[in-house]
Amino acid sequence: MSSPERRFPASVYADRLARAAALGHDAGLDALLVTPGPDLRYLLGSRAESFERLTCLVIPTAGGPASVVVPRLELASLTDSAAADLNLPVHDWVDGQDPYGQVAALLPERPRTAVVDAMPALHLVPLATRFAVPPVLATEVVRQLRMVKDDEEVAALRRAGAAIDRVHAQMERWLRPGRTEAQVAADITAAIVAEGHTEAAFVIVGSGPHGADPHHEVSDRVLEPGDVVVVDIGGPVEPGYYSDSTRTYSLGAPPDDVAAKVALLEAAQRAAVDAVRPGVTAASIDAAARDVLAAHGLAEVFVHRTGHGIGLSVHEEPYIVDGNTDVLRPGMAFSIEPGIYFRGEWGARIEDIVVVTEDGCEPLNHRPHGLTVLPG
Amino acid sequence: MSSPERRFPASVYADRLARAAALGHDAGLDALLVTPGPDLRYLLGSRAESFERLTCLVIPTAGGPASVVVPRLELASLTDSAAADLNLPVHDWVDGQDPYGQVAALLPERPRTAVVDAMPALHLVPLATRFAVPPVLATEVVRQLRMVKDDEEVAALRRAGAAIDRVHAQMERWLRPGRTEAQVAADITAAIVAEGHTEAAFVIVGSGPHGADPHHEVSDRVLEPGDVVVVDIGGPVEPGYYSDSTRTYSLGAPPDDVAAKVALLEAAQRAAVDAVRPGVTAASIDAAARDVLAAHGLAEVFVHRTGHGIGLSVHEEPYIVDGNTDVLRPGMAFSIEPGIYFRGEWGARIEDIVVVTEDGCEPLNHRPHGLTVLPG
Repeated sequence: MSSPERRFPASVYADRLARAAALGHDAGLDALLVTPGPDLRYLLGSRAESFERLTCLVIPTAGGPASVVVPRLELASLTDSAAADLNLPVHDWVDGQDPYGQVAALLPERPRTAVVDAMPALHLVPLATRFAVPPVLATEVVRQLRMVKDDEEVAALRRAGAAIDRVHAQMERWLRPGRTEAQVAADITAAIVAEGHTEAAFVIVGSGPHGADPHHEVSDRVLEPGDVVVVDIGGPVEPGYYSDSTRTYSLGAPPDDVAAKVALLEAAQRAAVDAVRPGVTAASIDAAARDVLAAHGLAEVFVHRTGHGIGLSVHEEPYIVDGNTDVLRPGMAFSIEPGIYFRGEWGARIEDIVVVTEDGCEPLNHRPHGLTVLPG
Repeated sequence: MSSPERRFPASVYADRLARAAALGHDAGLDALLVTPGPDLRYLLGSRAESFERLTCLVIPTAGGPASVVVPRLELASLTDSAAADLNLPVHDWVDGQDPYGQVAALLPERPRTAVVDAMPALHLVPLATRFAVPPVLATEVVRQLRMVKDDEEVAALRRAGAAIDRVHAQMERWLRPGRTEAQVAADITAAIVAEGHTEAAFVIVGSGPHGADPHHEVSDRVLEPGDVVVVDIGGPVEPGYYSDSTRTYSLGAPPDDVAAKVALLEAAQRAAVDAVRPGVTAASIDAAARDVLAAHGLAEVFVHRTGHGIGLSVHEEPYIVDGNTDVLRPGMAFSIEPGIYFRGEWGARIEDIVVVTEDGCEPLNHRPHGLTVLPG
């Protein structure tokens, strides 16, 4: 398999920085302050993960270049980012110096600042004491930026979807009575990496009654003939975009009641996929799935939202949830993953990632959606 | 290998919560607010990683039980924590409700609060708007708690040290001319897990000129005969305590100059280990290593601090760095890892974890410290 690039061309990041500055200006801000995490990766292609020492991208909204405050020890990491490609000003510091003062020195008097969601209190508290006006969250600016994917991002998500489909396609090799959830998960983890992800970010194997807990991960429970098993798996592919796909398996032919309920779930998932197009709200997609289940008395057992945006984060905007009036636009990417949960008995979930197109959506996962029956 | 417990007995967490409340009271605080991360794992044994939805442990300092505000969807995760064992009050919330108001409702008027370092701005900003008094950092309270390890924590760190030693012991199998750093790192990653870690948290293979960058990770550089290679690796063992050990290898006999300089580095590392005992400052340990190198003209190429505390985080208090007047106490655990770096040429680093004892220290890593010569 060819090795995809670790980041996009520099012009992509120059454009993102300019759009961030413009959105910040429109929001009445003087500057955006971005510490390591998915937002920094989006804006600079940087994989910096420094926590205890401040690394901060400062984006002024009144023009002028963005600049980076960075520990001298981390200077090398900036060469693996667009900061180098774009020749951004860099202000390094060593232990004993005051990086918060360096950030403040880059800003006007009484700056109106916004900080990214991921900035830890460790840095926000000392930064805030520097500023007469308390920093606000950059959530809205960042979501406007990141929520609509460009063609290169969609291509990365498409690669991720194909990779996780190749893992689900091999499930019969691993999911067998007598093995533990943890043993199955170890095999899946290896396959996720082997199929082109840089890591396995999450591997949920919820067998039998464990399938009834939407946030169960894995356990030492031994799979039994007749188990219904929820397998929800994913990870990032270069340059950092996530897969996330769930299928539900049955070890042996399922009882009629189980088969009927999963068929309804499949119909609910398909109804939501079919409802996706530009101009409708995120809430309407949630409703499309929920209505199918509610019509058959299953509203109470669908205990979570229908989906979440996906990109450089596994969970990001837009959230496909009741009350979200965000209007879908081409390029938005999110999961559609209704589930049904019967506490103490079994559960099922079906999940695809879709990307909004000009007149509908493109699903990025293509494995069969119904209950896949494996040998019991 | 037997499977160590996922958390300590409930009494351990009851004691930690009581000590946290007492330290918070002494610091003039009304409450400590703890979101997911290593501090929550320390205080509750919880592995919760929720980011976008608020999970918050509220520890009142005036008496009364700690309580947990948690998304309903995450309730199950609390059963895998001491919150269940200790029967702590739980306040759950669903999308659309205001969890910040729920936290505020647990506090007195105008509360003096402290938040953990890891609390993201996403939660700190809306919490702070609730409080007339801006939250401060709980850094000092938490470091007083976590900096001194109890016997069970030391036992876990000892298991971690033995596990990573077993990986270094196999290095000759993987570190050979003609292979890339990335190939070597993949083998090391698998071995870290095979030897009992729950994951490989970091794998640095810095060969030849890459060894001169203390934060280099891995690359596609092909190892050559004569390379000096820095291998800095580690990960967590249950219930969450990290290993971290560095050794430096030579592919074939090294030039006299390299051998002499690494021998000095070994002496510097040993001098720092020998200097550890209760009652001396962290800075004095840094100086012990630095003085040896300075006496031989190598002060300028030792470009970082001598070490960092370790436990549930790879990097935590106490930092072994110039200016840190923290006095060492029995139970403190930290790395001693001086390094020398010759830009564009080569580098070396030697790292052990040590635990302060009543009259010195116990090193937790026992592989040979000098330059290990492998076939070139």
